[in-house]
Amino acid sequence: MNNKTLMDNLRCIPDFPQKGINFRDVTTLFKSPECLNIMVDELYEMYKNKGITKIVGIESRGFVLSSALAVRLGAGVVLCRKPGKLPAETVKENYTKEYGSDTIEIHKDAISSEDVVLLHDDLLATGGTMRAAYNLVKKFNPKEILVNFIIEITDEGLHGRDAFEKDTEVTTLITV
Amino acid sequence: MNNKTLMDNLRCIPDFPQKGINFRDVTTLFKSPECLNIMVDELYEMYKNKGITKIVGIESRGFVLSSALAVRLGAGVVLCRKPGKLPAETVKENYTKEYGSDTIEIHKDAISSEDVVLLHDDLLATGGTMRAAYNLVKKFNPKEILVNFIIEITDEGLHGRDAFEKDTEVTTLITV
Repeated sequence: MNNKTLMDNLRCIPDFPQKGINFRDVTTLFKSPECLNIMVDELYEMYKNKGITKIVGIESRGFVLSSALAVRLGAGVVLCRKPGKLPAETVKENYTKEYGSDTIEIHKDAISSEDVVLLHDDLLATGGTMRAAYNLVKKFNPKEILVNFIIEITDEGLHGRDAFEKDTEVTTLITV
Repeated sequence: MNNKTLMDNLRCIPDFPQKGINFRDVTTLFKSPECLNIMVDELYEMYKNKGITKIVGIESRGFVLSSALAVRLGAGVVLCRKPGKLPAETVKENYTKEYGSDTIEIHKDAISSEDVVLLHDDLLATGGTMRAAYNLVKKFNPKEILVNFIIEITDEGLHGRDAFEKDTEVTTLITV
């Protein structure tokens, strides 16, 4: 299932952002026109019949593919951001991280109960931020919430999928 | 030249991020499938014959449209980020802001002398960050550097275009 071109172009950076973490660097996929096309084509094939109306990009690497996929699907793009970045009224979600806590927010008028929402980010590691985004979007009471990552990391003893209920549809383009 | 649908959908938030600033909120254009299509179509028409090979999105609202336009143009996407966010070796540019200074960076292997680069961000206000991004990309010695913003703000006594040399091609989709 892993596309060979994507796998060959994915860069791994040891000890980033801290010692012991092998960081999967998606920027090498973004900068390649071929990889960009493969990713958008694969995402389009996965979601073309799902009735997606909004793609929520998670700050900030999750923003990158959102527009390409949204244009193909006829959907809009919504930004899920860290506190203080969105100018209008927002709905917030607090969540705990390994060290301390964090907050994410979405504009209050960005999602309606008529929407089918695809959440998108680059990396599934612990799944903590995406689970918070899922909980946040649930507050808008949309018809359905789907979850996608470019890369799922399973080789560091991580089980990020476990952050989601079993009936949540979580897809990834690459598993490492 | 200003598209009426884009103008009608653009939101203005008074006193954000500080008192006295009327913030132009591009998120209302992103969330509308119609506006998203208009923006990407207009950008494609403007740049389809320019031989663009890399689109540099400026952190982080500049990331959003980068992939949609890149896919249409057959280009790659490069991220211009704040310090410490890019995992591999970078080239940096320091610049002064109204209060204090800032740094932006791009991965060292993200642009080559064979590239034709389009810099893209959402808002042209003072032009300070984009001028720094321009100077940064110049260090890679690409064939050409073009500059685009979604929105040019001229109504607050701002002359952001003056931040660039006269021979730099700076385009915008909307002027307010």
